[in-house]
Amino acid sequence: MDRKRFQKQLDFILEVDKEKNIFRQSHLSGYIRQENDAEHSWHIALMIYLLKEYANQEFDVAKAMMMALIHDIVEIDAGDTYAYDTKGLQTQKERESKAANRIFGLLPSDQKEHLMELFEEFEKGETPESRFAHVMDNLQPILLNDCNDGKDWRAHGVHKSQALNRQKTSQFGSQEIWEFAKELIEKNVEKGNIKE
Amino acid sequence: MDRKRFQKQLDFILEVDKEKNIFRQSHLSGYIRQENDAEHSWHIALMIYLLKEYANQEFDVAKAMMMALIHDIVEIDAGDTYAYDTKGLQTQKERESKAANRIFGLLPSDQKEHLMELFEEFEKGETPESRFAHVMDNLQPILLNDCNDGKDWRAHGVHKSQALNRQKTSQFGSQEIWEFAKELIEKNVEKGNIKE
Repeated sequence: MDRKRFQKQLDFILEVDKEKNIFRQSHLSGYIRQENDAEHSWHIALMIYLLKEYANQEFDVAKAMMMALIHDIVEIDAGDTYAYDTKGLQTQKERESKAANRIFGLLPSDQKEHLMELFEEFEKGETPESRFAHVMDNLQPILLNDCNDGKDWRAHGVHKSQALNRQKTSQFGSQEIWEFAKELIEKNVEKGNIKE
Repeated sequence: MDRKRFQKQLDFILEVDKEKNIFRQSHLSGYIRQENDAEHSWHIALMIYLLKEYANQEFDVAKAMMMALIHDIVEIDAGDTYAYDTKGLQTQKERESKAANRIFGLLPSDQKEHLMELFEEFEKGETPESRFAHVMDNLQPILLNDCNDGKDWRAHGVHKSQALNRQKTSQFGSQEIWEFAKELIEKNVEKGNIKE
């Protein structure tokens, strides 16, 4: 074991512990409290493994799971940008790119490079792995929101067009889950949880 | 898509959301609060991918990561049993087996069977995947505890023999990380964080 290399890996592992303190707008089932990024990432990695049968294309499961596990690490520095926060979304890329450099930069250079690539691949969403990871990243919050009677949609006055826009990348990863997501949104429009 | 099958998968996905409310004895870095099972599982799945080069044997990374993501799901019903709680440890197996049947039983039967197998394989710790997953499950709490000046060891008056006993399965998954863990414990004995 190269102890200098191992120490860099441990430094990264301890640094990302901070992701457990980055809270999202979404609430846990039962509306107990807001969800944090580590919990969200755990949930979607698990969903990738469980729901992989619905992917449009075959993909490397370990790679997609790791992508899910690290996709929000940049928020340790950049903070969570809510899906409907148009002002925050303008500066999001720049803030997150700077954060990726600092945080992944704690790792040995080969792993820094690999994780930066995984992160950027996820952001672009052009490969089977990143496309399916996005389907899960889109699906998980609407499942929670739906089981909480749409409280988060109501709190933010979300419109149907916004909710659909947030889900639209799902069609590239899973046509079947995209169809399901549209129905779930429609059901919540009918209930008055999402504005027409 | 078989909608009945998909609904069972979603039922499971929503049920396991409760894991975010199961708190462990370990504290986050900075001793901010206790860690929950979902966060812990996120952390060790990520560590499996990052530290796989130290495994004694090659292993299936996606399988080991999924094992890590689900290994504490039974605690939704059975609760967290602290590593040094000798009374709780006596009934742990029975409580967890009952929980596994109920929670994995929400899934379609093929996936129930598969996840039960993964969970039992982890418990036995006899395959390369489960052995390496155990190394991470052992390492993660001592990293947090070490960076918090051993506050959790102190609070529970942990002895060196107990701390070593908790780590001993690591040698079967990674001889190199087992050596590191022994040194980390020794360092904390010298600091007075762990009793001689």
